[in-house]
Amino acid sequence: MELHERIRSKVLREKVVSKEEAAKFIKDGMTVACSGFTPAGYPKVVPEMIAQRAQKGENIRLNIITGASTGDELDGVLARSGVIKKRYPYQTNTDCRNGINSGQIDFCDIHLSHLPQFIKLGYLGNIDIALVEAVAITEDGGIVPSTSVGATNTFVQKADKVIVEINFAQPLDLEGLHDIYDPGDPPLRSPIPLCRVSDRIGIPYIPCPKEKIVAIVISNRKDSTNPVAEIDRDSRLIAGHIIDFLEFEIKKGRFPKNLLPLQSGVGSVANAVLTNFKESRFENLEIYSEVLQDAVLELIDTGKVSFASGTAFTISPSKLDHFYKNLKFYKNYTILRPQEISNNPEVIRRLGVIAMNTAIEIDIYGNVNSTHIGGCAMMNGIGGSGDFTRNAALSIFTTKSVAKDGNISSIVPMVSHHDHTEHDVHVVVTEQGLADLRGLSPKERVKQIIGKCAHPDFRKELWDYYRKALFYAKYKHTPHMLNRVFDLHNYMVKYGTMKPKVC
Amino acid sequence: MELHERIRSKVLREKVVSKEEAAKFIKDGMTVACSGFTPAGYPKVVPEMIAQRAQKGENIRLNIITGASTGDELDGVLARSGVIKKRYPYQTNTDCRNGINSGQIDFCDIHLSHLPQFIKLGYLGNIDIALVEAVAITEDGGIVPSTSVGATNTFVQKADKVIVEINFAQPLDLEGLHDIYDPGDPPLRSPIPLCRVSDRIGIPYIPCPKEKIVAIVISNRKDSTNPVAEIDRDSRLIAGHIIDFLEFEIKKGRFPKNLLPLQSGVGSVANAVLTNFKESRFENLEIYSEVLQDAVLELIDTGKVSFASGTAFTISPSKLDHFYKNLKFYKNYTILRPQEISNNPEVIRRLGVIAMNTAIEIDIYGNVNSTHIGGCAMMNGIGGSGDFTRNAALSIFTTKSVAKDGNISSIVPMVSHHDHTEHDVHVVVTEQGLADLRGLSPKERVKQIIGKCAHPDFRKELWDYYRKALFYAKYKHTPHMLNRVFDLHNYMVKYGTMKPKVC
Repeated sequence: MELHERIRSKVLREKVVSKEEAAKFIKDGMTVACSGFTPAGYPKVVPEMIAQRAQKGENIRLNIITGASTGDELDGVLARSGVIKKRYPYQTNTDCRNGINSGQIDFCDIHLSHLPQFIKLGYLGNIDIALVEAVAITEDGGIVPSTSVGATNTFVQKADKVIVEINFAQPLDLEGLHDIYDPGDPPLRSPIPLCRVSDRIGIPYIPCPKEKIVAIVISNRKDSTNPVAEIDRDSRLIAGHIIDFLEFEIKKGRFPKNLLPLQSGVGSVANAVLTNFKESRFENLEIYSEVLQDAVLELIDTGKVSFASGTAFTISPSKLDHFYKNLKFYKNYTILRPQEISNNPEVIRRLGVIAMNTAIEIDIYGNVNSTHIGGCAMMNGIGGSGDFTRNAALSIFTTKSVAKDGNISSIVPMVSHHDHTEHDVHVVVTEQGLADLRGLSPKERVKQIIGKCAHPDFRKELWDYYRKALFYAKYKHTPHMLNRVFDLHNYMVKYGTMKPKVC
Repeated sequence: MELHERIRSKVLREKVVSKEEAAKFIKDGMTVACSGFTPAGYPKVVPEMIAQRAQKGENIRLNIITGASTGDELDGVLARSGVIKKRYPYQTNTDCRNGINSGQIDFCDIHLSHLPQFIKLGYLGNIDIALVEAVAITEDGGIVPSTSVGATNTFVQKADKVIVEINFAQPLDLEGLHDIYDPGDPPLRSPIPLCRVSDRIGIPYIPCPKEKIVAIVISNRKDSTNPVAEIDRDSRLIAGHIIDFLEFEIKKGRFPKNLLPLQSGVGSVANAVLTNFKESRFENLEIYSEVLQDAVLELIDTGKVSFASGTAFTISPSKLDHFYKNLKFYKNYTILRPQEISNNPEVIRRLGVIAMNTAIEIDIYGNVNSTHIGGCAMMNGIGGSGDFTRNAALSIFTTKSVAKDGNISSIVPMVSHHDHTEHDVHVVVTEQGLADLRGLSPKERVKQIIGKCAHPDFRKELWDYYRKALFYAKYKHTPHMLNRVFDLHNYMVKYGTMKPKVC
């Protein structure tokens, strides 16, 4: 019987109930912490039951905490039915985002490495229910996660009650992929004993007292991951600039021949950039990242990557069958850790990670906006970009130099929201070129960023702004005209373009 | 002979030269890395010789790197004589600041924990000369620092040549206070074995091959530290809010009874806040900080603090004699570490530090400006505030609610420069009150910050801005009017006040 393989304790097999029954534990005003990090490893059937109750008129509003983003079966259904009162710490779902930007949903954007500590310190209040997807439960109640770990271990530890969705669509072979380790609470913490990307420091399941598990639901749905976009010309150019730069750094003796462990942000551009490392001359690369996307599998396949550590596997639908079929092979080269470890400043700093993250906009002094459109609208959240960027040996930000058919310049006088300050941004790359900002003063950075990264359509405007600011500003460390600094953004609102001709 | 005590190697005693002779090693275009962290432990006589050469017409421009700020005998004399071409990573000297803001000096503002790593990775180029103050040199060339360690160990390690100023005004009893440890280079680093504030993990001197020391100069000048300001009513109120809050946190069970290790920023307000902990009920406090000021001595004297770790002692002139007389006593309760350790994300995160830093301005959404006046003028630099804030278990920012005789509101719609983003600021405190921002969405934060921290003279203006932004903004996660967001700053430039009546 496969149920015996999936739920190995007799007592717990008796806790299998319908999704309707399980959902009854979740009541108005509760804080529900759900597994999931990207559309990977999140609960897929209980949320729907809650949404149905809300649609039938029940007054039910919840605080929803997850590791990071999830799939539509969680964020989408709950947002559309008005169930989400407050959402932490990251999201990418269209309906959830619309709820946030219309003011219906309160959203608190948190560094992903901080989330578990915040919960353990009690900063986010009591966790009433942990609702988690698993591939199996061990005899002792140990929860074996599926395609992500995220903060599930912390949720299970701190929640009053635990509901588990055993997902038969997630292969049992995922067991053994995870490495669960808890660094403990301050001030009595010891060093995290992780010195190599491949180090295994914990146990392969999340410990949980059996009596804490109040309901188990059987599900059978694949992760609703997104297809990755075709690798376009711009992504190829961006990757090319990065590879050339890193090769030069090796020549200069600043990095070892196989570089330092790589981190790559999430999304199509990030995936495309990493995929292009296939064409590089680097060998034995290591990845110490957050989300392992298709690119990582390809780099393992081609022998470029010798080991990859993350907290979630987000494999696109077209690649998923391949991944599952070859799971035993990939398990030799990969590991999934709690986000408190994958994103931990201690480990990232120790390993000296090369961080590559994507920006929405970057300003002429090197500040980065990763989260807001036009200063007001939340896109997704800061995610792990701050954890990696701040502690990296080298932090690289990439963006295409223009957006919206060339109407928006991604290089602006001042970013409309600051997520990474000038102190944390070492290298900026667009398809136009690469700006190496290390050790430069603000004015030196301007020359690099406008000169090498801005799109030719906007260079004159940017230079004009900078030259006027330099001339008029009384103090010239970071010349700005605060009364003109958002002119391009304001033109965009008024005319639908930042393009100079129209303005 | 005291010289034998101070320079314990015969070979090295023969390298004692005049300050003029020593200064000859320093030539135009060089990068000179000097000891010093705050006006403590910096070279005091060789810089003057370089300045004199420049005043006599010699073309000499240098890149100057230090641990952090220094005294007038270094930054002042070199800035006034036009010798500083580029300055890293922090400064507080009036003439140096003026040079930066007039555009004469290029200044690169760097997180203090990042500086040593940047140098070791070669990001700031070759270090031609390390110019360091010491109290003694051991038989093997080991350099015993004086009142600061800063990044001196890294400078000595990476410089081509080392010049030492043996300062007889710094008591030999300082020996044994320092704990020099190098975490090594990525990717082959091991954990930093520091688990308790008082842990000693290294050696009491900076190792240096004798042949690297090209000149030794004898000096006899005290650190030019600044007097600390009288503790005023506002500082007392700020401290009171913090102490009440921390007592409540202990009651809630979020922190142990003796709290978590405290970090305090530099300056009079920070010192005053810490001094007020004398009046608290806390016992056995520990300090894991950067700069140990007068307040720390008082807290040790009164038995409130059981141990304090830092990278520099900055004791005001009136307290210095007391400090030196009781050095043997204070050495039982204090340790000075390299800034790569005192400010290391790994250690700060592990210990779960409570970070208390001062802000220039804070915006209604919780972003903090620590460095720039009016968006353009550099004040001092980010210093270690980012290292501590980002990795703290709790990060507190303090500021008086108004500046310039009440004409400037420290709470503004958007800070004119971002050093710490909304993600990193847990608590904001002014003399008006305390805003607890943990787990809040941007709009929830506004209510806390304006309601509890803004000065009554500016509350109406701030509420008006926010309400209009909320009404007009199409997207309402972080409501802003980018065309009005710096109105208060622009009024200040135009009318010399942000006050509504005049505006």
